[in-house]
Amino acid sequence: MNSWVASANGHPDFSLANLPYGVFSLQGGERRSGVAIGDEIYDLQVALDAGLFEGLALTAASAAIGGELNSFFALPREVRLALRERLIELLVEGSEETPAQQKICDRLLVAAAQCTLHVPARIQDYTDFYVGIHHAENVGKLFRPDNPLMPNYKYVPIGYHGRASTIVASGKPFVRPSGQIKLPDSDEPIHAPSRRLDYELEVGLWVGPGNVLGEPVDIANAREHIAGFCLLNDWSARDIQAWEYQPLGPFLSKSFASTISPWVVTPEALEPFRCAQPARPEGDPTPLPYLLDAEDQSTGAFDIALEVYILTPTMREKGVAPVRLSLSNTRNMYWTFAQMVAHHTVNGCQLNPGDLFGTGTLSGPDRNSMGSLLEMSEGGKHPVELPTGEMRTFLEDGDEIIIKARCSRDGFGSIGFGECRAVVLPAWGRTS
Amino acid sequence: MNSWVASANGHPDFSLANLPYGVFSLQGGERRSGVAIGDEIYDLQVALDAGLFEGLALTAASAAIGGELNSFFALPREVRLALRERLIELLVEGSEETPAQQKICDRLLVAAAQCTLHVPARIQDYTDFYVGIHHAENVGKLFRPDNPLMPNYKYVPIGYHGRASTIVASGKPFVRPSGQIKLPDSDEPIHAPSRRLDYELEVGLWVGPGNVLGEPVDIANAREHIAGFCLLNDWSARDIQAWEYQPLGPFLSKSFASTISPWVVTPEALEPFRCAQPARPEGDPTPLPYLLDAEDQSTGAFDIALEVYILTPTMREKGVAPVRLSLSNTRNMYWTFAQMVAHHTVNGCQLNPGDLFGTGTLSGPDRNSMGSLLEMSEGGKHPVELPTGEMRTFLEDGDEIIIKARCSRDGFGSIGFGECRAVVLPAWGRTS
Repeated sequence: MNSWVASANGHPDFSLANLPYGVFSLQGGERRSGVAIGDEIYDLQVALDAGLFEGLALTAASAAIGGELNSFFALPREVRLALRERLIELLVEGSEETPAQQKICDRLLVAAAQCTLHVPARIQDYTDFYVGIHHAENVGKLFRPDNPLMPNYKYVPIGYHGRASTIVASGKPFVRPSGQIKLPDSDEPIHAPSRRLDYELEVGLWVGPGNVLGEPVDIANAREHIAGFCLLNDWSARDIQAWEYQPLGPFLSKSFASTISPWVVTPEALEPFRCAQPARPEGDPTPLPYLLDAEDQSTGAFDIALEVYILTPTMREKGVAPVRLSLSNTRNMYWTFAQMVAHHTVNGCQLNPGDLFGTGTLSGPDRNSMGSLLEMSEGGKHPVELPTGEMRTFLEDGDEIIIKARCSRDGFGSIGFGECRAVVLPAWGRTS
Repeated sequence: MNSWVASANGHPDFSLANLPYGVFSLQGGERRSGVAIGDEIYDLQVALDAGLFEGLALTAASAAIGGELNSFFALPREVRLALRERLIELLVEGSEETPAQQKICDRLLVAAAQCTLHVPARIQDYTDFYVGIHHAENVGKLFRPDNPLMPNYKYVPIGYHGRASTIVASGKPFVRPSGQIKLPDSDEPIHAPSRRLDYELEVGLWVGPGNVLGEPVDIANAREHIAGFCLLNDWSARDIQAWEYQPLGPFLSKSFASTISPWVVTPEALEPFRCAQPARPEGDPTPLPYLLDAEDQSTGAFDIALEVYILTPTMREKGVAPVRLSLSNTRNMYWTFAQMVAHHTVNGCQLNPGDLFGTGTLSGPDRNSMGSLLEMSEGGKHPVELPTGEMRTFLEDGDEIIIKARCSRDGFGSIGFGECRAVVLPAWGRTS
């Protein structure tokens, strides 16, 4: 299907098939809610004021406006879906409302390149999972070569609570963290900037309505509670992590910044790219009943290509394009998004609209598909060589990491997530 | 100093020397902000409307009203202090404003017993520390008898991110969590209600203004960022915890409910109960410079008695009063609150007004001062006998845990935190 918004047609990320939601501002103005279409942002407030919505779509658009999507995420799935269906009607080529929209086109459509994009919802709680089994194996091997996976891994969708206050939108640079580091040649830690700063390739899940405290979400209903997806870079300071994480898990090694892509890609847009959960290897345990659902088994996974690129200061100076470090896929998830929702609430834990889940690092099985430098460099032992001749074991000041995701299928075109990117700034109190 | 509010004089918790802030509602009405004084709550909105505040105190009272204290916590310390000083002027015996206040007394003072008390601020992020060294040793001993403390313990104020959405105010019962449990006689986990449900005696810290992302809080300024304190029961399902916590730390074993006492006891009220940080045992390392401050060393700790009581259904039936399980003290903290703030932000992590820290379980060195049943029963091996003849290794449905805290000193009277209490309900889908 083509759109009357010309830049949408053939757009690699934001064709009419996608229509992700986001929050933007123009030249320091107020935060507004919009929908990405080609190179433009469709302003929901302007469309609403123009009377383009009615019924459930009006309910949904009214909840979405205001520069924060929590109230929209809180709506039942069918109400959110009504807005999507109406947006397709409005934006499709030959739409009855084309003349009405073209009359207000200068306000209804804003050039995305002129906008700042924001974290699209108020995140009360952020949970990071660990469902990338190859990542768990690769990291486990560094510590326990013979027995990389913990005994619980194939039973429990392992996760932990992360820091919500430091989740930032793509494009915002962040300061290299300092902290306690214990160097191998000393018995005592030092306080210094991290020397082993890394990225982690993840997908994020935006929670929809959520549940009442004390009442688990049945896995058969889990999809109702998934409002959308984004990309997530869970920046990690490996040296701080190694010293702090026993016995309660990662803390300051992760809480200095986590970058997300600002567009909320809906489950409906990704529907054509659903696939069966990868078959569990012979001998792997069957999930416990609360994690098992026939529909989830057959269509609970997604086939989304994930890419990580690096752009160093030298590359920037020389005009060299970002270089791809890895190509992975969401099929590397051992647990589905629905299983994550069911597990998170099995104890009665309350999920709220706008909570964010991360998948954990989604590495593939080989070196070209690894989602972190820790894995690619085998714990810092083997630097990665870039086309400029530069070597990287971990990130240096000025390095920029860019994560992208895309899925395409004959007859359904292409859907992309947009970019999740950020530059590393020198540590606090230092200049590069 | 006496107050014209008669019930305040000699009140064990809420004398004129305390004046903690809180959020209450009356008979299902709107949430209002108030101050505890004796058996009453002083309604800040009513006082404000009566013109009783001006200058900085007016700024502070205006920020405090509205049933959520975040904006009040965000104020600089001297502004918050101005409100406290004005409240003392207003409530002291012989106050010039006594006649004006007594005229509106029926609205200005509400009987606390008729009110519901709420979580006093919107908590975006909740962090739980592990600064109770005896608890860390007691729990460590269960796993590593010869070497209970991790090598990082005396260098790092260990902490981890907790779940903000499930922090509930004292008095609200909670559902026993279900989850994955691996019994010792099986290789495979089961999905079942926790059989090893426990409490944890903690103190909570309410974060004040907070910092800008990327900029650490210097320990010398850390007190500016401490708005107040509460009690915290970090309910824990030990069997779920044992199976899930490797390698990323506790998750569902803690996230089903955490109960806090609703009154925010200010640092100013606790000033007379400051004390020197307990001397580090011979051979313990000196804290790294970012955790070291002379004033913090000499006055950064507090001498607050902490008590845990239990009330079982049988005791309730027989009319037996709650029985004390332990008497501990905040002096059992290995790290101070200021050290927690400095450590949390050393990586640039942003703290926001209304964030909550827990200290971790504050056990003393002996059995009568332990802050959890896990410790008292030595991992479930030695049940605790109650005066009714009942035995407890872990909590049973209907059990209620009550935490209290109080400090007193000649010439300064007594200050209490009020109660932190909750009853265990049967697991979801079960009836007792």
